[in-house]
Amino acid sequence: MPAGSTRPTGRLRLAIIGLGLIGGSIARATRSGRWPTSIHSISAWSPTGAGPAAAHAEGMIDRAAGSLAAAIDGADLIVLAADPLACLGLLDAVAGLPAGDARPTITDVASTKAAIVERADLLELHFVGGHPMAGLETSGYAHSHAGLFEGRPWLLSPGHLARPIDLERSEQLAAACGAEPHWLDAAAHDRAVAAISHLPLVIAAALVQAVSDADDWPLARTLAAGGWGSATRLARGDVAMGAGIAATNAPELARRIRALAGQLEEWLADLESTPADPAATADRLAIRLRAARAGLEALD
Amino acid sequence: MPAGSTRPTGRLRLAIIGLGLIGGSIARATRSGRWPTSIHSISAWSPTGAGPAAAHAEGMIDRAAGSLAAAIDGADLIVLAADPLACLGLLDAVAGLPAGDARPTITDVASTKAAIVERADLLELHFVGGHPMAGLETSGYAHSHAGLFEGRPWLLSPGHLARPIDLERSEQLAAACGAEPHWLDAAAHDRAVAAISHLPLVIAAALVQAVSDADDWPLARTLAAGGWGSATRLARGDVAMGAGIAATNAPELARRIRALAGQLEEWLADLESTPADPAATADRLAIRLRAARAGLEALD
Repeated sequence: MPAGSTRPTGRLRLAIIGLGLIGGSIARATRSGRWPTSIHSISAWSPTGAGPAAAHAEGMIDRAAGSLAAAIDGADLIVLAADPLACLGLLDAVAGLPAGDARPTITDVASTKAAIVERADLLELHFVGGHPMAGLETSGYAHSHAGLFEGRPWLLSPGHLARPIDLERSEQLAAACGAEPHWLDAAAHDRAVAAISHLPLVIAAALVQAVSDADDWPLARTLAAGGWGSATRLARGDVAMGAGIAATNAPELARRIRALAGQLEEWLADLESTPADPAATADRLAIRLRAARAGLEALD
Repeated sequence: MPAGSTRPTGRLRLAIIGLGLIGGSIARATRSGRWPTSIHSISAWSPTGAGPAAAHAEGMIDRAAGSLAAAIDGADLIVLAADPLACLGLLDAVAGLPAGDARPTITDVASTKAAIVERADLLELHFVGGHPMAGLETSGYAHSHAGLFEGRPWLLSPGHLARPIDLERSEQLAAACGAEPHWLDAAAHDRAVAAISHLPLVIAAALVQAVSDADDWPLARTLAAGGWGSATRLARGDVAMGAGIAATNAPELARRIRALAGQLEEWLADLESTPADPAATADRLAIRLRAARAGLEALD
């Protein structure tokens, strides 16, 4: 057996495709020694090569591969660390390459799951969708850090052809990053994140557009303060990432938008039913605000 | 002339009605010595008397009055430091008391202006509506502090019977609190704050209700993170205050809600027009997100 190919049973040869905030943080986390790791070696590739070159220079990966094919050659676990639309393309690309003997597990880190798992199933890949729920405030390898996933949920949604070893490897990855793996059906995942993540993004953007299109925006903007800042914070995020996430979760997101529109209709009815009696209006609105506050406090 | 009634020309005898976060901070700011003050003396009254008693014990006010009538007796400037609905009632109460010789200026600090200015005009008071744009995160005299208004806008909307001296006294108050007075028509004020303050509150509450009513909320709530937190922060505020603000700004708020609903309709159209082509959907959504981000960045 040639030198370099021996390794403890169960320790994974990892290939990370895309080495920005998430991919870079996976490399750092598994190298940090903070958590027991089951990662044996890491190769990485990205379209620009910038992240892999920097990570290799820092010793965070073993190999900055020159191509996608070279990166995944011999890998047990391939992590597509890209946005949802890019993951769809990467699944096609990986499926078009020779599988080799390793019959690798493929996983991803994108924020939507149903469209990606469906594509992987169509391509007959051994796929487990992954979604580490960690920050999107920054992007790029330069912002990656070993603690990004610490204690955070790492949602896992198996494809139809996922084998027991694929499930095991996916959990190993999450654990090696200090995250808490949770199994979840892809459709249920997408419904849930539409509610607590994608709808808030749409609302923030729609809020900005609704008021910045109005003719008195030059005045109103001068009065914007902290409340406006928090209500619109999500609209400052990465545009391509947000658009890809929303587009690959369109049906569930649309359903949530309609639910919100229904709530706004009820606000309008309550606001307008007793125009001459603001105290009565306030009593009705207080019921709504109290219910919302109770809903939030139930989370604390 | 009896002792105690002499004072430099232009220094105001102030009566503060309601001594919570805002009223208490006005008292502290004018006593702090941070800004040149034109306040000669302060009497205060509140329904419970708790704030005035505490403020008198600390030397922040000169007199904790036993009644509304006693508080305003001899005052040059009466500040109604209460929420919008309470201000409407206080205007009625003040109008029902003997005016005395001082012919006082009356102002307020509530977050909506048109309904309050209109009521003051009906009651034929010398009124200037005021709105110091300072934090609503906390409430109560215990949270009041001298720096609350420092450098913040203090919006002023004159009533029909406001005299030159009423305008001058209102500006004096804002300046004595370290704020920057801005004159603004009450209707324009209410339109602007509906956009950047009241609509965000409605959205936060409607968002919570839209998703917490859904059958998968027990799952979704476990995934809520930072984005959800900022999108819903405003729904954690004081319920009665928020309801009163929204109710006294109902027409403008309703107009803004309809503008937002129109934006949501456009999101739905973009999300659903090419269900088989998520990349094309993402391109359309990116235009929306880019516009929203540009709108925000124009504020920075």
